[in-house]
Amino acid sequence: MGLQTAWIREGGRIVELAWGDGTTGRFHALWLRDNALDEQTRSPANGQRLVTILDLPPETFVTRADVTQDGCLSVCFIPEHKTVAFPGDWLRTRLYDRVHERRAGWTSPEITRWKAGDFSRSLPSASYATIVRDRSALGRWLEQVRRYGFALMSDMPQGSGKLCRVAELFGYVRETNYGRWFDVRAEVNPNNLAYTNLGLQAHTDNPYRDPVPTLQLLACLENSVEGGESTVVDGFAVAAALQEDHPEWFRLLSSHPARFEYAGSSGVRLRAKRPMIELAPDGELTAIRFNNRSTAALVDVPFEDMPEYYRAYRRLAELIEDPRFEVSFKLRPGELFIVDNTRVLHARKAFSGSGFRWLQGCYADKDGLLSTLEAIEEEQREKTR
Amino acid sequence: MGLQTAWIREGGRIVELAWGDGTTGRFHALWLRDNALDEQTRSPANGQRLVTILDLPPETFVTRADVTQDGCLSVCFIPEHKTVAFPGDWLRTRLYDRVHERRAGWTSPEITRWKAGDFSRSLPSASYATIVRDRSALGRWLEQVRRYGFALMSDMPQGSGKLCRVAELFGYVRETNYGRWFDVRAEVNPNNLAYTNLGLQAHTDNPYRDPVPTLQLLACLENSVEGGESTVVDGFAVAAALQEDHPEWFRLLSSHPARFEYAGSSGVRLRAKRPMIELAPDGELTAIRFNNRSTAALVDVPFEDMPEYYRAYRRLAELIEDPRFEVSFKLRPGELFIVDNTRVLHARKAFSGSGFRWLQGCYADKDGLLSTLEAIEEEQREKTR
Repeated sequence: MGLQTAWIREGGRIVELAWGDGTTGRFHALWLRDNALDEQTRSPANGQRLVTILDLPPETFVTRADVTQDGCLSVCFIPEHKTVAFPGDWLRTRLYDRVHERRAGWTSPEITRWKAGDFSRSLPSASYATIVRDRSALGRWLEQVRRYGFALMSDMPQGSGKLCRVAELFGYVRETNYGRWFDVRAEVNPNNLAYTNLGLQAHTDNPYRDPVPTLQLLACLENSVEGGESTVVDGFAVAAALQEDHPEWFRLLSSHPARFEYAGSSGVRLRAKRPMIELAPDGELTAIRFNNRSTAALVDVPFEDMPEYYRAYRRLAELIEDPRFEVSFKLRPGELFIVDNTRVLHARKAFSGSGFRWLQGCYADKDGLLSTLEAIEEEQREKTR
Repeated sequence: MGLQTAWIREGGRIVELAWGDGTTGRFHALWLRDNALDEQTRSPANGQRLVTILDLPPETFVTRADVTQDGCLSVCFIPEHKTVAFPGDWLRTRLYDRVHERRAGWTSPEITRWKAGDFSRSLPSASYATIVRDRSALGRWLEQVRRYGFALMSDMPQGSGKLCRVAELFGYVRETNYGRWFDVRAEVNPNNLAYTNLGLQAHTDNPYRDPVPTLQLLACLENSVEGGESTVVDGFAVAAALQEDHPEWFRLLSSHPARFEYAGSSGVRLRAKRPMIELAPDGELTAIRFNNRSTAALVDVPFEDMPEYYRAYRRLAELIEDPRFEVSFKLRPGELFIVDNTRVLHARKAFSGSGFRWLQGCYADKDGLLSTLEAIEEEQREKTR
């Protein structure tokens, strides 16, 4: 149902459009001019804009607006006397004359929140051997990471440090003071509680780091202990549950920064000041930070709000530990899981017994993952055209 | 002027403290319990908290609060019947019973905003040869980066890719689709306008990436062209100027996300949705994003606000191009500059002539830089004790 009609409104300041299915929407002349797709405005080679906002006349008007036979909007701008065309679909996917979501805590349709039991048939998973040779299988796996914030992988290449190859399938390792990758196993003098056999409360990694690593990979090399299961919790589902029952507590945790610190190794003094529940300025839920081990003294919450902030923090912790949000699995050698570290918390059950538990971790970032996924999706759309 | 007196208030829910200089402040019993420094609460080895908020009784009270001879607060908590001590200075630096800054756009005292002329004597700078062998000189250079958001370096090691060594002095290279480092020189078929001889409007790099690289290094290998000077602009000073003249425009740019995109290379489809002026939930100014080449269609601004948003965007661009904010220099071979890419914009003048301009860039992150700086500062405090 293509673009059908264009009207000039308000003396040329606005163009109103109507599509075949009844959708209508208005665009400002200056917005259209700024987003013109012609090759004087946008480089045909790389798509980058060749002009700045200061190159455009602030008093830009449309003098002509027609729908062409191929469903484009053709407009002429004054004072430049410049005619450009926009595909009707291009405009439609960029309609800003609509009701904008501003409710605190909303998430994009690409995200599905989940609880225990939602993966009763099978967890999001793929085989390394498959995705390394099948780009559409890689796309499906990455799409699950985008949607659920975690996924498993089997049939990993054997050997120390090989988990970096998984990150390199879609992006780039984020090197930190822990290295490009690091061992997670019981140590005698651990500089981090992760390197003990204690259970670890569900947490996001490195909230004391800004920018926080947005992806974490954990691969299993050995897991012959009793216990030592891995658990994942959807922080976005937990935040929604908190908001539903106690909107005021959700507001408190999202409107005051928390503090996080790590100083476990010499030469390392990491600190961050970010809220436990982070919202974009339009209310979109963008990140969860939660880690009992590295939460520092909370000093940005006003005295009067502190008791209620602690109630909110406690309730968040209770929900995070509530089995109705918990998905557990025991990693076997050759298996890995990835989490969106801005959303999905992970935990480890305590372990004991005669065996060993040897995991390796590495960090990466979502920019590369989402870019690769969108490139694959675009390739597939082009194939089916 | 140490801690002098402690009073129990509200039946043990609160402890009020007074220091010798007249400072007073109240702390909640539960806050004190959560932040206890004893070795059952915090690992003596790595400082991480060994308990979770759920391990602490929600109804925690203080039954005894004394100031010890060495200026510590000693408190006993019930129902745990647990006694712990806090150094008076430790509490004083964590006073939350105070007036909290919530005004939009404030910045930390560690940051000094600057304009053209503020560096009339000399730019923040150091020699690589010096900082590589003198840890306190490295500390001073890093302190300038934290304070001003940029600094120069001379006497770089010769050779392609050597700028990564500078990043490795304090942190870690952030690898991206451009590599660990990348060449910036005129190319025949550039996939990015940076690789032409065009002038580039002052911008932050890669706003289409989330997380954005928080540091950028640009090193000069050759610069024998006419023109090609580098410019830096303090985005935080520009934002403050916008806010002073037009608070409503500052509010518009900080309360609606912008969109950024880059699709210049095959397999790369980077997108981000973040505001041009980013504030923490307590109003702290945390980031500027500005890049005419990669700003995508703005679709999150409501129709009614779009004309005013564009006025704000134009005014921000005018201020960014205003010479009163601009600091310029021409890099010579062996010189490098670093910018805090969440704050300081950089630009390049157009160039021509018979010579060559060959720069190399790389990205890194502020977590490592600030961690190294704080570790050096701590070493120095310990030396002077």
